[in-house]
This record gives sequence, structure tokens and C-alpha cells, in this order.
Amino acid sequence: MTDAPNSRAFTFIGGDHGNWAVVSQRTLLGAPIAQVARVDIVPGIAPAIPSNAAWSLRGVATNDRYTTAVEKAELVKRQVPIGRTEATRATLVLMRKTTAWWALAQDERRAILEEQSHHIAIGLRYLPAVARRLLHCRDFGTAEPFDFIGFLDYAPADEAAFDDMLAQLRATREWDFMDREIDIRLTGA
Amino acid sequence: MTDAPNSRAFTFIGGDHGNWAVVSQRTLLGAPIAQVARVDIVPGIAPAIPSNAAWSLRGVATNDRYTTAVEKAELVKRQVPIGRTEATRATLVLMRKTTAWWALAQDERRAILEEQSHHIAIGLRYLPAVARRLLHCRDFGTAEPFDFIGFLDYAPADEAAFDDMLAQLRATREWDFMDREIDIRLTGA
Repeated sequence: MTDAPNSRAFTFIGGDHGNWAVVSQRTLLGAPIAQVARVDIVPGIAPAIPSNAAWSLRGVATNDRYTTAVEKAELVKRQVPIGRTEATRATLVLMRKTTAWWALAQDERRAILEEQSHHIAIGLRYLPAVARRLLHCRDFGTAEPFDFIGFLDYAPADEAAFDDMLAQLRATREWDFMDREIDIRLTGA
Repeated sequence: MTDAPNSRAFTFIGGDHGNWAVVSQRTLLGAPIAQVARVDIVPGIAPAIPSNAAWSLRGVATNDRYTTAVEKAELVKRQVPIGRTEATRATLVLMRKTTAWWALAQDERRAILEEQSHHIAIGLRYLPAVARRLLHCRDFGTAEPFDFIGFLDYAPADEAAFDDMLAQLRATREWDFMDREIDIRLTGA
């Protein structure tokens, strides 16, 4: 009907410009993407990859997929939005899950994510130090290289806590269903 | 990275050609869309609206959002794919849900959909007579006019049963969260 962008969409452009400088880019699982110097974050869908960019990844913020009302109340009470002045460090986590994950029923995925892996509970322990924006890419009309784009920001003093949180998550049963994962560390202007 | 279409995507083009002739087009809630004579169903994302078409709606098949493993086993045992030779009648149901629906936590939406509205249980009673394909449009990169496209086909003799099913669903608490709904009846070649 219209090709106006989804108002919940964001594009991450990897290249040689943007507010975030790349400190490290590490492929944990699956195929890598081109190494870049900077990442630009643009609201909406960037219509094409700029000529000076290596890649462009887009995702949309969506409704809760697993969170219960009780968990949500706790999150809302403790979380802060991304973009605080002191949050000059950030990590972009690009993830794709396996076909086996997506073939599971809703209650099976919820059980793995929370009752077995405590994904929400682990995240809660690091609030409000770590702020998070999770974007979904799997249900775009186009074939996207990742299912999720996680963008998390924090003050330099909280980077160790952030690493601790990621290490816990990556050791869970949920992460057995990871098919591709890339970790890009960023530092702000 | 690529603009290849999502392999789970389909486009429904309303105009003057296509395998399905429109028998009736009824707006139950919200704004109508242009009245058309035929509907064409195309795998993938049609890149533009053909000049002889009035509208083009696209959606993707995705993972289960509410179905439990027990319910899924029952569905898989009884359901049939769309496109049976005898299924010469079909209904296209275009739906958008309210902001209030999408703001609910996962367990709240599940409780309304199944424990209060028995959406899955009602659907199961009409298997295998009614075959269904449900597509999602809400998490596209572009702003889409509907959240869901339901396409259901059945033999002419089963149309009364299909109407009965729809009437039951439309009387549920879940339907209180409907923001826009259009019912397009189709007949095959």
C-alpha cells in the first residue's frame, strides 16, 4: 500500500562514518561480515547502502515475545532508555538462531529462554547499568542475514559487568540454538 | 545485505486478474480498501503494484506465537495444506489489532487468545475442512496497513461450517482488540 518505513525500524550502517567507532569486531559463530571502522545508526530504513559503507543491517522493535506481565513490570521499573550521556560504550550483537529453534512451539521456546536459561532474570541483574534495544529482522519482506540486532550501551566503568552478563548468557541452553553471532564493540564520540 | 525476498513471504494483489474471483468484500471494522474483481496470490514480494491493480498486500509466514507443543501436535495431526483441488472457495481476512493488544505482555496475550477466547480450540474443530495460511505483516521494514493476512480455503459444501467458525471467533474477547478487519470472499477457477 505504501513504502513508508515502519516507525519502529532502525538501520545500522557499517563503514567509515557514524557516531560510533569500532573498537573490536569478533565473529563468535558462523560467517563474519566485513570489518568496518565506524557504525552509523539511522532511524527508519536506509534505502540503500551508501557507497562508502560495507554493510547495512535493519531491524524493528516489536512486542514482547516471552516476557510475562510480572517480569515486564520489573523491567519497566528498572530499565533506562539507550542514549544516556554517560553511556559512551556500546556493543552491537548480531544474532541468528537455528531452524530447530524456530520450529519449536511457543511454550518450548519460553521454557528454554527463561525457565532453563534465565535470560530475563540475568538481564534484570544488570539494570540500570546496561540499557538495551532489541530489534527483530526475521519477519521482514526481504531475506535478512540475522534474526536479531541487539544494541546495548553502558558507561566505561560498567563494561566489566556487561562482559559478565554476556558470558552468563552465552553459557546458557538458549545459546545452543545460536546459528550465527557477531560481537562489535563501539565507543562514542 | 541483500534485497532478495524472504522465502516465507507472499503478496496478495487486488485488481482485475488472478486465480481468485471476488464474490464479496466486506469491511467489518476500520477503513475499507478499494473494491476489486479478482485477487492474485504471488510467492515472494511483488516489487510494485501492477498498473492494473488497486492494492498489494504482503506478509510472511512465521514461527508459532502462542501455540503450545501439545496444541501443535494436535494441529499437525489434523490440518491440511491450502490448495486442495476441492477447495474452490476461500476467504481473505485482513486484520489489524489495537495498540493496547501489542502493549500486553506475552502471557496476557496468550491468556486472552486461548484461555479466554479458545482461538486455537475453535479452529481445531473445523479441521481438516478448513485449511489456513496466516501471514504476519507487522514487523516488515515498511509500514503495512494490516498486522495479519489470513487466507483460508475450503470446499463449497464447507462454507457454512467456515462461517460458523468465523462467527465464534468474532464473538470472542480477543476480537475486542481488533482495530481493522476486512473479509473478502473468493471463488476459484
